[in-house]
Amino acid sequence: MSGAIPARALTEFCRNLFIAAGTPERVAADVAASLVYADMRGVASHGVVRTAIYTQRLEKGLVAPHAEPVIERKDGSVMLIDGASNYGAYVGRKAMGHAIALADKLGVGCVGVRHSTHFGMAAFYARDAIARGKIAIVLSNASQIMPPPGGIRPFIGTNPLCIAMQTPFAAPFILDMATSVVARGKIMAAAARGEPIPEGWATDAGGRPTTDAQAALGGLLLPLGGAKGFMISMAIDILCGVLTGAGFGPGVGNMYKNWTDEQDIGHFFLVVDVERFMPFERFLERIGAYLTALKAEPRAPGVDELLYAGEIEHRLERKAMADGIELPPSVLADLRDLAGKYRIETSLFG
Amino acid sequence: MSGAIPARALTEFCRNLFIAAGTPERVAADVAASLVYADMRGVASHGVVRTAIYTQRLEKGLVAPHAEPVIERKDGSVMLIDGASNYGAYVGRKAMGHAIALADKLGVGCVGVRHSTHFGMAAFYARDAIARGKIAIVLSNASQIMPPPGGIRPFIGTNPLCIAMQTPFAAPFILDMATSVVARGKIMAAAARGEPIPEGWATDAGGRPTTDAQAALGGLLLPLGGAKGFMISMAIDILCGVLTGAGFGPGVGNMYKNWTDEQDIGHFFLVVDVERFMPFERFLERIGAYLTALKAEPRAPGVDELLYAGEIEHRLERKAMADGIELPPSVLADLRDLAGKYRIETSLFG
Repeated sequence: MSGAIPARALTEFCRNLFIAAGTPERVAADVAASLVYADMRGVASHGVVRTAIYTQRLEKGLVAPHAEPVIERKDGSVMLIDGASNYGAYVGRKAMGHAIALADKLGVGCVGVRHSTHFGMAAFYARDAIARGKIAIVLSNASQIMPPPGGIRPFIGTNPLCIAMQTPFAAPFILDMATSVVARGKIMAAAARGEPIPEGWATDAGGRPTTDAQAALGGLLLPLGGAKGFMISMAIDILCGVLTGAGFGPGVGNMYKNWTDEQDIGHFFLVVDVERFMPFERFLERIGAYLTALKAEPRAPGVDELLYAGEIEHRLERKAMADGIELPPSVLADLRDLAGKYRIETSLFG
Repeated sequence: MSGAIPARALTEFCRNLFIAAGTPERVAADVAASLVYADMRGVASHGVVRTAIYTQRLEKGLVAPHAEPVIERKDGSVMLIDGASNYGAYVGRKAMGHAIALADKLGVGCVGVRHSTHFGMAAFYARDAIARGKIAIVLSNASQIMPPPGGIRPFIGTNPLCIAMQTPFAAPFILDMATSVVARGKIMAAAARGEPIPEGWATDAGGRPTTDAQAALGGLLLPLGGAKGFMISMAIDILCGVLTGAGFGPGVGNMYKNWTDEQDIGHFFLVVDVERFMPFERFLERIGAYLTALKAEPRAPGVDELLYAGEIEHRLERKAMADGIELPPSVLADLRDLAGKYRIETSLFG
């Protein structure tokens, strides 16, 4: 397709960009991989669109790309890590590596992280655990955008919940969801098309329910299922923020608005070793039977297929691997500007 | 209030009932406590209304009240338990005890349970962990009542998600939610009042969306937030059923409909020791600050108070402790019948 950029080339470009901006190669590699992986899986909101803000915060000294995460506590199956304000992708991947090692040793690894920064798409970390035959739960808090039920101001982030494991099929089961009704990206897309959004997605700046996508962008995202989604998000905030020593609630720094403080984001990685429960092959057989039963269910008129979590994203990933990644003009323009600014030689953008 | 039954007397009655029906005292005590605790917290659907079905299944030999749960695997932080088809309340409480002990030893306890039966309200088990200063995650699968997105038949239960921990206030934070939009109990209540239900709660028996509460009772419950709630429920089913060796999906026995098989329900208990992350007092201070900040948020017109998960239930529990438990006439009639059948001397029901 015209304009599609090969994933490998885009990853290399981003890595070179972060290196040129002052990031060590090992860190730049994780950040680039996380962004491009999100774009490949169709989660553009967590993709290379973030290169601009990531490098801006680097320049302001609000990300510390040379700082190594520090293991603050280690006891049994638990580890607490100070992310030292390095990039979330680097900190998170290190933390997940520790959680996997603990799960190998003791069946479960539980790693809390404080003092981190935006870590992008949670599935990026789950992938490392899945590749080792583990079950992963990945949580993070995020800056406030959802009001409490009955409230009118943002209090909490759309704190993601990710639960993932291997299947015998091409696509692993990867639930990776924001705790809002929809991700902000869907509202941005509707606004760009000049279309309204359904009731119940968002409020305007005054806290009033709105179907105007543009007004919603200045307003608040509503939690999934009202109180239930909000309370899931609070539970995630307690595990990621309160328990680890990170920021929580309105204390998590907004990447776009707060230019004086480090973000102090918290993450929570939980890895379970399947082999402690049953032989891995048997687990694969059983989850295979489960998903096969789902797909054999009768369907409503007009429904072609019943899907499990992560299947669509996996197909997009395969397609992007083969055909490259399509980026919107605004993102291409950003990348072109950044290439110029950091003097990256590239023929990627024409 | 007239007709209110003291919690202690109701618990004793239920315990005597299960003993008279052939349940050992230690098991009967857990079952009775779990049912009355649910009624006290306002979760009547998991309360003493279940005594009738619980004793019926006992009589049919589909619950094995004398069987001791067996530890099948124990390795590091992980334990796998065969519930031996004893009552879920007894099996679950034992399993939670092991999870707490593992968390004391290694920071995390992860206990999977297979071959169990209906365990009632998840918060009942979390309570034991909270009392020991732990954070608890309690999951269970349940018999199928929710269709997949795009499907027309029930495939999965409203598998509950419970995350709980202590706070410095009277009410612990206890998220304990079905993964459906609403619990079946709310639809039963609407049907009893002859009122319609909002769109999006349920379908009729033909899989068509309905606002007719009576039709909904013969139909399907819809998952919270559509695909998101369904995929959370699937993830819970994978942890509780697929991973433990229990039933999963349509393979979980329906307590009311399947009179030939044991239920083979699976549970998953995860306990985290707060002290491995920070001193417990500091955790309490931090979560106290978090909840205080929530309560200080500005409120929408007409909203008196912003609440966190478990607060309403805690107030109901306190009230029930002081004033007793109000039971609807149909449940009182059931209990009176059971008292007659099992020859329990009681003056509780007038």
